[in-house]
Parts: sequence; structure tokens; C-alpha cells
Amino acid sequence: MNKVFIATSLDGFIADAQGGIAWLDTFPEINQIDSGYAAFTADIDALVMGRNTLETVCGFDIDWPYQKPVFVLSTTLTELPEKARGKAELVRGNMSEILETINGKGYYKLYIDGGKTIQSFLQADLIDELTVTVIPILLGAGIPLFGPLPNPLVFECKKTTLFLDKIVQNHFVRQRTGS
Amino acid sequence: MNKVFIATSLDGFIADAQGGIAWLDTFPEINQIDSGYAAFTADIDALVMGRNTLETVCGFDIDWPYQKPVFVLSTTLTELPEKARGKAELVRGNMSEILETINGKGYYKLYIDGGKTIQSFLQADLIDELTVTVIPILLGAGIPLFGPLPNPLVFECKKTTLFLDKIVQNHFVRQRTGS
Repeated sequence: MNKVFIATSLDGFIADAQGGIAWLDTFPEINQIDSGYAAFTADIDALVMGRNTLETVCGFDIDWPYQKPVFVLSTTLTELPEKARGKAELVRGNMSEILETINGKGYYKLYIDGGKTIQSFLQADLIDELTVTVIPILLGAGIPLFGPLPNPLVFECKKTTLFLDKIVQNHFVRQRTGS
Repeated sequence: MNKVFIATSLDGFIADAQGGIAWLDTFPEINQIDSGYAAFTADIDALVMGRNTLETVCGFDIDWPYQKPVFVLSTTLTELPEKARGKAELVRGNMSEILETINGKGYYKLYIDGGKTIQSFLQADLIDELTVTVIPILLGAGIPLFGPLPNPLVFECKKTTLFLDKIVQNHFVRQRTGS
């Protein structure tokens, strides 16, 4: 069970053209309410992210923010940044191999995070649930959440929540044939 | 008051990579229910669309489908396709001029339709409301609803509706400074 929980702009970007995420605070009042992140992370076994996301998180002036095991996908890293040592683990291989490794360690409910990592999992049709919080700003350009796919993937929207009459969160579940 | 009412894929496309829209029928049961289109069109004074949309509509094996006046933006057309003659009107100029022309004829609540036309109006910050029905399929490629902008535009989501536990419709209103 691989899940995504992410915010995008109305035009589907996860970062602006300069890689910036200041626009996530377009409506800072969202930080004062429960938008489901705590419940989401309480229900996962581990996180899977790419090098970019790890380095971004390590660059924040905060302590290590994760309570759950973190697996970092990288074809280039040979060791983790200091902040992540003893807390995260490097994994390698194609998406199926990586998933097998992580599942083999007893972690099944995975939070898949980071643009490239999410796209790689989607390309392998290995994402089961997507919770997308739409910050309703049109950026015009940026780093898109979604990318090319070998085949279209059909989901079903199972829940939608409006926050503060401003921000909408849509929850999509992959429609599996025969299920 | 310029409004958009449109369906996109989950990855934000209004047509697939071949320009096709068969994926709009991913969940054909949506055609059996009221998804708000009739109420939306009942409340507008006129439609504004581009040449592409007009030609697509004229290509359908149906009678002229609009009960309201239709204005067609084109820099290349000198006359309308036969099906549209006497029913639609060509308009020319930049977006502000076009809007002035149409408003000058007494039409104020406008349904702005078609990818390029919507993008042109957004570039001029002339869209007030966007109703986006998300068909939850990831196409991987196609013709995007949104495009480049000179400046970011902030909207607020004022309503969200879940249809059939599959399709979600989000209604966004432009946040105007001082309003």
C-alpha cells in the first residue's frame, strides 16, 4: 500500500520555476488547522523519498522531522548527509526491487514523497492512494507533480474536503481491475 | 464576470496527446447525473470560444448545441463554418478589446471555453471563476488546461462536490485585492 500526500498549485506544480515553495504559504491560516497530515503519517509504516527531498529536508533549520523509518532512493549517493545518518537508509534498484527490499523489512504502508520518486512509482503503477491538497494559485510554470507514463492510470476520487473556503484536498484511490 | 466550466484529467489535461477526449468517458455514468452544467449555462449571457473549439463542436454529428449567443475568437478565420453561420459571431482584437465589444452588446456573464481562449483570458487576468471537474485518470501527456502566465494568480476554492465517489468538481473564485 503506497500512498502519496502532497500539495500542488492549481496548475499542478509542487515547486515554482525556481524550485521555491513559498507559495505553499499563500494562505498561512492553513497551518493553524488540521489538514489530515498527522492522521496520514500516524497510519504509515515508513517513508520513501528521493535524494532531492532528503537534501531539502536536511537543509531546513529544524531537527530531523520524521518519527518513522525513512528510505532514500538514490543512484548517486554513497552515504547519507550527516543529519540523516542513523535515521534514514539508502536503497537502490528499480522500483519493484526497492519495494521488495522495504516490504521485506516488514514495512508495507509506505508514504512515497518527492516529485521524481512519485513519478517513478507511478510509472511502475505502484501508487495506490493519492491525497492532493490544492493551493489555489496559478503559478504559470514550475516543477510538475505528474509526468509521462507508459500507460494511463485510472483512479477514483473517494473524498474531498474544503478547508477555510479556500483550499481543497482531494483523495484518489487507484482503480484496480477486478477489485 | 468571466467563467470557465471544464473537465480535466487528474494531471491537468483537457485532451490527450493526440487531441482525443475519449477519456472523458472513463466513467460514463457521470452523464446520467446532474454535474451542474445546465445550471451553469442557464446563468450565463453568452459563450466565448476559439476557432479550435468551434471547429470541434461543428465536427460533432449534432445540431448547433448552444442556446446563448456565441462569440468566436480568431485571428485567421474570415468567415464562420456553415453550421455556425447566423448563430455565432467572429470577434477580433486583444482580450480587453474583445471583452469590451461583447460587454458593449449587453453580455456580461460570459462562459469562456477552449484551451487557448482560457489561457489568453488568464494571461490577461480576466477569469473570475473556474469550475474544474477532475476525471481521475492520469494520461501522462496531452494538452494542458493551464499555461504560462505573466504573474501568479490567487484563487479561493469555494465549493467542492464529489460525484459517484469517483469524480470531483472544484469551484475556484479569483481573489481580487481589496475585495
